[in-house]
Amino acid sequence: MTERPRLTPAMADVRRAIRENLSDLTPDAVVLVALSGGPDSLALAAGLAFEAPRAGLLAGAVIVDHGLQEGSHVVAENAAAQARELGLDPVIIRRVKVVPAAGPEADARIARYEALDSVARELGAVAILLGHTLDDQAETVLLGLTRGSGATSLAGMSDINGIYRRPLLGIRRAQTVAACEDQGLTPWNDPHNQDASYTRVRIRHEVMPVLENQLGPGVAEALARTAEQFKQDSAVLDALTSEIMPTVFTPVLGETAQSVQATLDVTALTGLPLAILNRVIRRAALDVFGSSLSSVHTNAVARLITDWHGQGEVHVPGIRVERQGAQLVLTASSSTPTEA
Amino acid sequence: MTERPRLTPAMADVRRAIRENLSDLTPDAVVLVALSGGPDSLALAAGLAFEAPRAGLLAGAVIVDHGLQEGSHVVAENAAAQARELGLDPVIIRRVKVVPAAGPEADARIARYEALDSVARELGAVAILLGHTLDDQAETVLLGLTRGSGATSLAGMSDINGIYRRPLLGIRRAQTVAACEDQGLTPWNDPHNQDASYTRVRIRHEVMPVLENQLGPGVAEALARTAEQFKQDSAVLDALTSEIMPTVFTPVLGETAQSVQATLDVTALTGLPLAILNRVIRRAALDVFGSSLSSVHTNAVARLITDWHGQGEVHVPGIRVERQGAQLVLTASSSTPTEA
Repeated sequence: MTERPRLTPAMADVRRAIRENLSDLTPDAVVLVALSGGPDSLALAAGLAFEAPRAGLLAGAVIVDHGLQEGSHVVAENAAAQARELGLDPVIIRRVKVVPAAGPEADARIARYEALDSVARELGAVAILLGHTLDDQAETVLLGLTRGSGATSLAGMSDINGIYRRPLLGIRRAQTVAACEDQGLTPWNDPHNQDASYTRVRIRHEVMPVLENQLGPGVAEALARTAEQFKQDSAVLDALTSEIMPTVFTPVLGETAQSVQATLDVTALTGLPLAILNRVIRRAALDVFGSSLSSVHTNAVARLITDWHGQGEVHVPGIRVERQGAQLVLTASSSTPTEA
Repeated sequence: MTERPRLTPAMADVRRAIRENLSDLTPDAVVLVALSGGPDSLALAAGLAFEAPRAGLLAGAVIVDHGLQEGSHVVAENAAAQARELGLDPVIIRRVKVVPAAGPEADARIARYEALDSVARELGAVAILLGHTLDDQAETVLLGLTRGSGATSLAGMSDINGIYRRPLLGIRRAQTVAACEDQGLTPWNDPHNQDASYTRVRIRHEVMPVLENQLGPGVAEALARTAEQFKQDSAVLDALTSEIMPTVFTPVLGETAQSVQATLDVTALTGLPLAILNRVIRRAALDVFGSSLSSVHTNAVARLITDWHGQGEVHVPGIRVERQGAQLVLTASSSTPTEA
């Protein structure tokens, strides 16, 4: 066997991505990597361990043990040992309790982010790096697309969102695998990533290969570019929506959850482009009622303005919407949506 | 065998879609259906033949014979006979000559639209109906997505675009097949629709079934909704771009094709949202140089503004772009693009 090269293309790409993502941080800032032990986060941890001292940053690792799989503490201990070996300090294992509520993936995610948030607070960290790659981004976009779930999910994941940063969104998953191998790091392969009961796993193993096969390589990159464009477009349209919101929308907070109301001014909204009208409706539903409307539900509410012919009230998740003269009145509701 | 029902759900859906699409037309207007003889356009022709007299419209059919397949004139004659049988009048077969230029699909499309345009002029038609369905729309979006080709293709096809109208964009292909069967119409099945050398055919037969299988039904509808949202978003952003264009962009038309130039004002463009900046660049390239830039090429030009560090000229298809002080100078070029 030949000796391992000191710096391979995969290692260089990962390091450069981290360097650029962290370039706005000032010396002595504490940066943590969220380490699962998988190839993505392990390559990220190795890259951070290399780049941090050169940028004057202090770099540690957090390993969240979800306690969902037999032997998860062993996986966590192994990852912690690798992180220490890489020179990260501190290396913290945080065991969490996943509370069944919204489904296994969502529940684990909620518990994980709570743990990461709390470790970041304890250590005064300014950034937590997540190992999501370009492939994860493409999968997220495809998932959003095929659900027609609107711009939010189509815009994919952000490279910087609060203290969370995703330096590897431009890096292919295969590069992170190569980067680990090039440095003699042995990643853990999460058996969940092979469990076809997860939609994301089916997208990864069944859908993306067919797309690449039938349409040629570059599909993942194209989907990631689409996410980028969606994000740029939404930034402008969301800003326009924010400008108009106070002039068209009046929240009327009641004494109890059931008496929460809000009104939308039909006269002011008439003639607005649909892109803005739909965003106003979504924003009102989310801000006052905590309800994320699908495009089908958003359109149903919009038709009370754009296609008004005296129709009755519309039920969307958590909200009853009724047109009263030149107002749409939104009221908290627990009844079944008109259209699912 | 039981007798055929007089009005089945599929027939009703097709007719309603046509009725709504044509509702803005005034009596005695001439409407043509572009008929290939396939199930989509045949169901459309039957629906138009039923709806037109009830709306006081005059309805005819145009069959374009591309002359590309053995016996194409027989297919055309059969379609014409079916159209006459349905009561459409006039029924016109137009034989075209497909000139090899941009590829077989594009060449046939160009010849087809030229023929349709010219028949519409001759007959004074105000509308030509095209049989594209929701499935076609979903395929178009998926094709655009996986090419990362920007908002234009992602927005899919329009239901009304000039004299062209697509009443069936909300109707599944299977419904058009059912509608034909319900009325005892026998559609022609274009062998090109089985030819896997066409990307669109692979999307239809290989990709979409995998998506529906792995992600559940409703994928085609979700993709169509995505197209609708893209269209709405782009309408606003394109209008903003049109407003700003005259203040940032100066075309300098030269005496020869090679001396065509244009300039973009870097100072005015600095700080613009990327969604607008990228549209300004695309618009300039298209309007002056007839060049449709991909997102990769658009980004390369944008970086001369957003990430300026003295880099050299950028070559994109048909254009050489160079930063000169506070201007981007675009010059017609036939050299190879910097990035493909």
